[in-house]
Amino acid sequence: MTLRIAEIFGPTIQGEGALIGEPTVFVRAGGCDYRCSWCDSLHAVESRYRHSWATMTSETVWEQVRRLSGDRPLTVSLSGGNPAIQDFGSLIAMGRAAGYRFACETQGSVARPWFADLDTLVLSPKPPSSGEEVDWDAFDACRNLGVGARQQVMKIVIFDETDYQWARDVHARHSDLPLYLQPGNTEVNPAAPVDLQALADRLGWLIGKALADGWFAPRILPQLHVLIWGNKRGV
Amino acid sequence: MTLRIAEIFGPTIQGEGALIGEPTVFVRAGGCDYRCSWCDSLHAVESRYRHSWATMTSETVWEQVRRLSGDRPLTVSLSGGNPAIQDFGSLIAMGRAAGYRFACETQGSVARPWFADLDTLVLSPKPPSSGEEVDWDAFDACRNLGVGARQQVMKIVIFDETDYQWARDVHARHSDLPLYLQPGNTEVNPAAPVDLQALADRLGWLIGKALADGWFAPRILPQLHVLIWGNKRGV
Repeated sequence: MTLRIAEIFGPTIQGEGALIGEPTVFVRAGGCDYRCSWCDSLHAVESRYRHSWATMTSETVWEQVRRLSGDRPLTVSLSGGNPAIQDFGSLIAMGRAAGYRFACETQGSVARPWFADLDTLVLSPKPPSSGEEVDWDAFDACRNLGVGARQQVMKIVIFDETDYQWARDVHARHSDLPLYLQPGNTEVNPAAPVDLQALADRLGWLIGKALADGWFAPRILPQLHVLIWGNKRGV
Repeated sequence: MTLRIAEIFGPTIQGEGALIGEPTVFVRAGGCDYRCSWCDSLHAVESRYRHSWATMTSETVWEQVRRLSGDRPLTVSLSGGNPAIQDFGSLIAMGRAAGYRFACETQGSVARPWFADLDTLVLSPKPPSSGEEVDWDAFDACRNLGVGARQQVMKIVIFDETDYQWARDVHARHSDLPLYLQPGNTEVNPAAPVDLQALADRLGWLIGKALADGWFAPRILPQLHVLIWGNKRGV
């Protein structure tokens, strides 16, 4: 199986969501069916960066994961772009046979049978500020395959009041999925220094909002990697 | 059942460990069998603050939790001091009957039958920098009762290299407990502003250390509440 890979890096920690703080190697797929207005991974999305993506077999990707992790099993995070537009089934099978765990984050626009082989499926439907519109039939198809995963959760990034209300509506229809909210990152320039106070303030804003509304369902988390390393790539 | 309570506050989020980001009301017990050198909750530990602790029935505590949460079920976090030197069994029974969930963090020095009624038991043995010494027989007794809880995890705060090596040893003997590491907070003065960069740097130091050693077992997390609100009390 041939894969288009934007980058493989780690071990680092998962900075977001259900596995926050967990040591991981990232396999970032190249290519996406979305183009979110605030995308922080354009180098894995836009086809003008396509020349920088490697065409690799699943075996070669697996070799790199093993090398980076020193053959010590850990969680492999499949991200992108949208990893679900490619077939990661072989990589997952090889890794799991060696005791590795697999997490995948996708917007939920393309359903894949290998979702059922994951340890963690993170469905991250994109809110209105992204400029994208969710296909809920496709999302439901992803959910149905994700039932086979060890855990299936939902993560929503919140940039503004409209996103927040949208997240409440989505949660009402999918209240059985554990929900993680994350304030949006408005500064995605890898060269720009991160304003830690602004990052803390955005998190405080979102927490204050949900708590004031008595909405206790979501866990609300920042992007730890931005806190520690700013918007640098490869960490 | 009468309880000595240092403070009840929330809803806020759990800033640490397994439930990081989770909306919660804190019930902070007054009194502790330890006196850690770097304690960040001395107002709930030292007997010179004892006059500020309220003597309350379990029913009165439960009324306050209901009022603060607007009768919407959420996670109640029992902290301290060491909550395990008191009997929280009645409070937990009342809260669970109303759909609330309960988490408790304790150093693991005193075992309580009500550990088995918790949703989350966090055992937080104190590393050498605390100046305390762990009684591992008592810790094992806590573990045995915690088997009845929905989840049981271990959290260790790391201030220095010695603490880190100690945590590795402890994990080797308790590798079945999911482990959370947290860099120590060296600035516990509620009036002092928090140095966010120093906080990010301490987290980066601990992550870098574990990853360089190929130690992928622990999840490594900061104290989110310090990031957002500094060392202020009651948030």
